[in-house]
Amino acid sequence: MSSNGPDDVVLLAHGSGGVMSHELVAKRLLAYISNTTLDRLDDSAVLSCHGRIAFTTDSYVVSPLLFPGGDIGRIAVCGTINDLAVMGAQPLCLSLALIIEEGLPFRTLDVVMSSVHDTCAEAGIHVVTGDTKVVNRGKADGLFITTSGIGLVPGDLDISARLAQPGDRVLLSGTIAEHGIAIMSAREGLSFSTTITSDCAPLNGLVSTMLGAVPTGIHAMRDPTRGGLATTLNEIASQSDVGIVINEAAIPVRQEVRAAADMLGLDPLYVANEGKLVAVAAADHADALLKALHGHPLGQDATIIGEVVSDKPGKVIMRTRMGPTRLVQMIAGELLPRIC
Amino acid sequence: MSSNGPDDVVLLAHGSGGVMSHELVAKRLLAYISNTTLDRLDDSAVLSCHGRIAFTTDSYVVSPLLFPGGDIGRIAVCGTINDLAVMGAQPLCLSLALIIEEGLPFRTLDVVMSSVHDTCAEAGIHVVTGDTKVVNRGKADGLFITTSGIGLVPGDLDISARLAQPGDRVLLSGTIAEHGIAIMSAREGLSFSTTITSDCAPLNGLVSTMLGAVPTGIHAMRDPTRGGLATTLNEIASQSDVGIVINEAAIPVRQEVRAAADMLGLDPLYVANEGKLVAVAAADHADALLKALHGHPLGQDATIIGEVVSDKPGKVIMRTRMGPTRLVQMIAGELLPRIC
Repeated sequence: MSSNGPDDVVLLAHGSGGVMSHELVAKRLLAYISNTTLDRLDDSAVLSCHGRIAFTTDSYVVSPLLFPGGDIGRIAVCGTINDLAVMGAQPLCLSLALIIEEGLPFRTLDVVMSSVHDTCAEAGIHVVTGDTKVVNRGKADGLFITTSGIGLVPGDLDISARLAQPGDRVLLSGTIAEHGIAIMSAREGLSFSTTITSDCAPLNGLVSTMLGAVPTGIHAMRDPTRGGLATTLNEIASQSDVGIVINEAAIPVRQEVRAAADMLGLDPLYVANEGKLVAVAAADHADALLKALHGHPLGQDATIIGEVVSDKPGKVIMRTRMGPTRLVQMIAGELLPRIC
Repeated sequence: MSSNGPDDVVLLAHGSGGVMSHELVAKRLLAYISNTTLDRLDDSAVLSCHGRIAFTTDSYVVSPLLFPGGDIGRIAVCGTINDLAVMGAQPLCLSLALIIEEGLPFRTLDVVMSSVHDTCAEAGIHVVTGDTKVVNRGKADGLFITTSGIGLVPGDLDISARLAQPGDRVLLSGTIAEHGIAIMSAREGLSFSTTITSDCAPLNGLVSTMLGAVPTGIHAMRDPTRGGLATTLNEIASQSDVGIVINEAAIPVRQEVRAAADMLGLDPLYVANEGKLVAVAAADHADALLKALHGHPLGQDATIIGEVVSDKPGKVIMRTRMGPTRLVQMIAGELLPRIC
């Protein structure tokens, strides 16, 4: 940090609640994400809202803060938007809470806040309330971000990991494992012939397209982040008390991602995604849903990867490329710490 | 940490998203704060909501995690409830996001979660959605908590730090500086003849009582946390573009708190509170509001501490006990790091 003068980094005093805090908020945060609601700087944002709302929160502790295809700001906005979107909700607004380690270079904070702005614009949403804390050097790791989000759930839509039914088809919106492999490659300093970038993206537009095509046929939806596709499918199987049978050959993995995963000793099924979703839908709506997915830039590699069965409730079974089936278990311990 | 076996502390694998994460959530988190919405463990909670909502977030990085009169769990619930309450909103639900440092003893987590439960029960609110991340040893400081909250704003109520008007009276709900002094005493290992405890408390009940008595007379309200009463009054003066004149003699400070503040070299005006509020109300409603405050357990020491003037917009002036007036400035740098 010796190359950074006191003007170039966040200081403990920026978390005081006083003059320096107000300057940090005005010059380094509001400068990027200003809007009429946030700018009031009241203790809460006030919004109109009629109907059913979805409410979610996630903390982001990804390391490194900047990685190929994104940064902690982009992932913090995408992750919370995606948790709303997979419930079928249209994101309404976000909150943004920063925990900054003293010494964080302002140039890093600027990159992150610029990314928060850009990702919010991409998703058509605003940050309406926030908070900033600063902790002493060595008591955090650069920057942690917690976002919460509110979304509007249309009509009487009910999408939940509890609602998968035997006979349903399981759709995957695209290639898997890119986020986790991008982070691990950045962390290990690996280079491949092609740079693997995170798939980090806001999925609310994709979900709108899906619900436009199939307003009532989607039963369950989830974004396979920590623990990867395997863990998400296990959660749906367990919460819906159904079995899920998937075909290994139907799961799209980019060639360079598969090669990198092999090199790192990782199974792509367990590696985090940040711009993909799994949808479980009634069989007679599956083709229409696949067509809708293919019509959106974020769903071009979508496939039907399997189906829901009444056998083996709570279990996920994979038909392997070789022929036999095997049990796909939930991840047990820690595969990739601080991936999001 | 040598006295803690691997079964007694949080491990990195508890943040994996897999089996150990699910066990942590079920046994150590849901065990304390279970309710039908949260227990679904969907990506978002879904709630009905009609009207105007208030939305707020705060991260808590208080050190030490446990202190006289509270802990990080209690402060995280109270702080967010209070940010809703001072907007006149009735708290509807909370989110709870934990960032845990590997090695945190489960017994500490249990104390904190038990406190989250008790404080939610005291305020009549539930945690409906949450998230848990674990970071490596040395990359956080035990536990950071971010809570967000949604509240319902009754009718067309509009309370904001922008709406103080000349002629308004400034009310303070009770004695100041207890939270900050309790934390500093705990941190410095100071002991006084009486243990000074944090005033940390949910203020939604107090605000309901106030709005019941004076439905339309309250113009601005804020809880004086980081930066203390001085900073909060400066924020109201600045945002409303008015002057505020306060009487030093009218500001209640407990004798032992004043003594401890003297010993620590702190001015109670700048020391954080976590269970107090400042209300700026029309002069003809001030007595009714004071009476309402006195009728609630959390408002028994309430006083009228001053008034709003058109002179000196953006400034806070104090008539001292000695007679002359002085300018009360916003806190500049860092007085008490990690007080909340």
